[in-house]
Amino acid sequence: MIRADRLITDCRLATMVADGEAYGTVDDGAILIESGRIVWAGARADLPAHEAIETDRLDGRWVTPGLVDCHTHLVFGGDRSGEFEQRLGGATYEEIARAGGGIVSSVAATRAASEDELYASALGRLAGLKATGVTTVEIKSGYGLDPDSELKMLRVARRIGREAGVRVRTSYLGLHAVPPEWKADRARYVDLAVDEILPAAHAGGLVDAVDAYCEPIAFSTEEVGRLFDKARALGLPVRLHADQLSDGGGAALAAKYGALSADHIEHTGEAGVRAMAEAGVVAVLLPGAYLMLRETTPPPIDLLRRHGVAMAVATDCNPGTSPLASMTAAINLACVQFRLTPEEALAGATRIAARALGLEDEIGTLEAGKAADLAVWDIARPAELAYWLGKPLLARRMAGGVWDA
Amino acid sequence: MIRADRLITDCRLATMVADGEAYGTVDDGAILIESGRIVWAGARADLPAHEAIETDRLDGRWVTPGLVDCHTHLVFGGDRSGEFEQRLGGATYEEIARAGGGIVSSVAATRAASEDELYASALGRLAGLKATGVTTVEIKSGYGLDPDSELKMLRVARRIGREAGVRVRTSYLGLHAVPPEWKADRARYVDLAVDEILPAAHAGGLVDAVDAYCEPIAFSTEEVGRLFDKARALGLPVRLHADQLSDGGGAALAAKYGALSADHIEHTGEAGVRAMAEAGVVAVLLPGAYLMLRETTPPPIDLLRRHGVAMAVATDCNPGTSPLASMTAAINLACVQFRLTPEEALAGATRIAARALGLEDEIGTLEAGKAADLAVWDIARPAELAYWLGKPLLARRMAGGVWDA
Ligand SMILES: [Zn+2]
Ligand SMILES: [Zn+2]
Repeated sequence: MIRADRLITDCRLATMVADGEAYGTVDDGAILIESGRIVWAGARADLPAHEAIETDRLDGRWVTPGLVDCHTHLVFGGDRSGEFEQRLGGATYEEIARAGGGIVSSVAATRAASEDELYASALGRLAGLKATGVTTVEIKSGYGLDPDSELKMLRVARRIGREAGVRVRTSYLGLHAVPPEWKADRARYVDLAVDEILPAAHAGGLVDAVDAYCEPIAFSTEEVGRLFDKARALGLPVRLHADQLSDGGGAALAAKYGALSADHIEHTGEAGVRAMAEAGVVAVLLPGAYLMLRETTPPPIDLLRRHGVAMAVATDCNPGTSPLASMTAAINLACVQFRLTPEEALAGATRIAARALGLEDEIGTLEAGKAADLAVWDIARPAELAYWLGKPLLARRMAGGVWDA
Repeated sequence: MIRADRLITDCRLATMVADGEAYGTVDDGAILIESGRIVWAGARADLPAHEAIETDRLDGRWVTPGLVDCHTHLVFGGDRSGEFEQRLGGATYEEIARAGGGIVSSVAATRAASEDELYASALGRLAGLKATGVTTVEIKSGYGLDPDSELKMLRVARRIGREAGVRVRTSYLGLHAVPPEWKADRARYVDLAVDEILPAAHAGGLVDAVDAYCEPIAFSTEEVGRLFDKARALGLPVRLHADQLSDGGGAALAAKYGALSADHIEHTGEAGVRAMAEAGVVAVLLPGAYLMLRETTPPPIDLLRRHGVAMAVATDCNPGTSPLASMTAAINLACVQFRLTPEEALAGATRIAARALGLEDEIGTLEAGKAADLAVWDIARPAELAYWLGKPLLARRMAGGVWDA
């Protein structure tokens, strides 16, 4: 006899369990939930003996795991809509930089903002993610770039995880850009990030993983290697913004450090893909930045498939290159632009995204033992989640066993 | 003394009046509304003597005209998410056609659907438009392609206009595709569309404009000319799907008939643009189809600007080539893909879209005499409407003087 807080029934399940069935589909499904966890999921006909306090009938709707947005910069001050408008009005990148635009404007606004202001503005973007079924979101630092401001960003991310109805995983992204005050001495900024900010953030319990932006315009593989050595010494997993604009060996570096993920990877070649496959590194695809930057080189999807690299999909929500705050839009764009199948894209927003966060035992599928994070959809088949852009599809969302009001 | 049902105050106005001010901005604005119409709009400091029954303070939020989606195929049976999935799985267009896919599958599903079913499924898509500030939507027939089914679609569109909280303008699109039963005798289908279906729909009060799909794979300029002659005889304005896949003289044909708009026009050359300018034809840009079809030739924006052709932006919401149900996403995509400025795109979704529907005296700006169709936004500047993709920005929507619940 299973005791449960809740029985969910009269529904179809896309469990996203990789069992050979497309989407891990169960046509007439049921889920038992107890204390915020799935204690049983499967075909209604196989329901074990149970006693449930409440029952929710979903009128035949589809249920998927709550979506997982495994790469965002959700917390930042200001926005860059003014710069977006200037650029479309004909201003060059140089003119915008001279006018104080670019990432330094986000750094200045983030440093100037209070924690309450950062929290409130992040909630506006989070609303778009939650409305599209997200129950877990990764949030990076990287617009503070000094000790106080990086820790402030990470505290805001933790507060979102406590108060805003989503599970949050944080990444310390101190090596995102060289801040203005260290332009003349970047080596000392790397020292600061590696030797002071990361240890302080870690000591405060604010860091779940360590990230960096590895690109000729950002940080070299040597600089990132120093950071990753420190992460290893602290027992923290790493991930990497890799090969977005050129094949700079980022994917191979991520593989060398056994990273959870290498993200972007538009320009990764076969050697990098092979290294990722051998090290079990997840490829995180970011189609929002691809769209907004009007890139023309997509990630090497066929190579990733051929070598068996698991692919996640995320919004990369950020003010400069991906002002995207819809997880179903990210899924649609991954299919349209990168030619993922809808099933690949949905796995990339659930099971594989969970793996990219090191949470594969906790979330990402509808299975006994996982957290009761669910999305219920007004759709006739899972492919609709990838097909529509901007149509409201979510009927209900459950995070940790609790339905949204 | 102005008597008003309602005073709206404590707000910023993007009136979208073309008065030289960007967005027609009024920094500290006010609007007086009486019997569903704007009776005064301007700076709060200039408010005339008035008596208002109710007052709404908007806490400094921005108010724009309700958005106008001037090109949609919102009413249709089924969807094509299965076909979308097959194509991404590697099926060729031929394989999909052999399996009954393509437009004929939408025609079959539309013919088989009841009016209630068509209405209910259209409401799901309309929810996305309304959630992004739309108060007026154009809806085409064209998936029925026989007398009963075309009239059924148009009746459903009229019902949406009566019951669903938006103003609707209908277009008869009988020359959308040759239906399967007339493949062997397309001339007789054109006869049927021109001589029977259009007059019957017009007699039933179901037609506000006449549209056609002019393209080598669809209908020739001669066939469209026959339809447009009939429209002229009936006193109906025309518009045209023109030059989407090739420069087939569609824009010039639209100009010859003084069409309200020529839509798509990715491949229109300078002669066509000049003809549009001389005839005052609006260019309707459809960035959703451009994205989904992965087109690489954008509409000739610079030519349109140079010749002074007004540009509208619309979703083209349809099951085959643009499953897009968000007006702010259409605005974003027009800026990102076609390099419209945010102000051009917002004008294209308000004032210019109204003109594309022949409603420039009724909607599209915040001015005395226009309908009280408004959108209230949680934004710091109008450019945010173009910058974000998927972030919920709408605070409130008013259609015909009535706030949404
Ligand atoms: Zn990023
Ligand atoms: Zn169309």
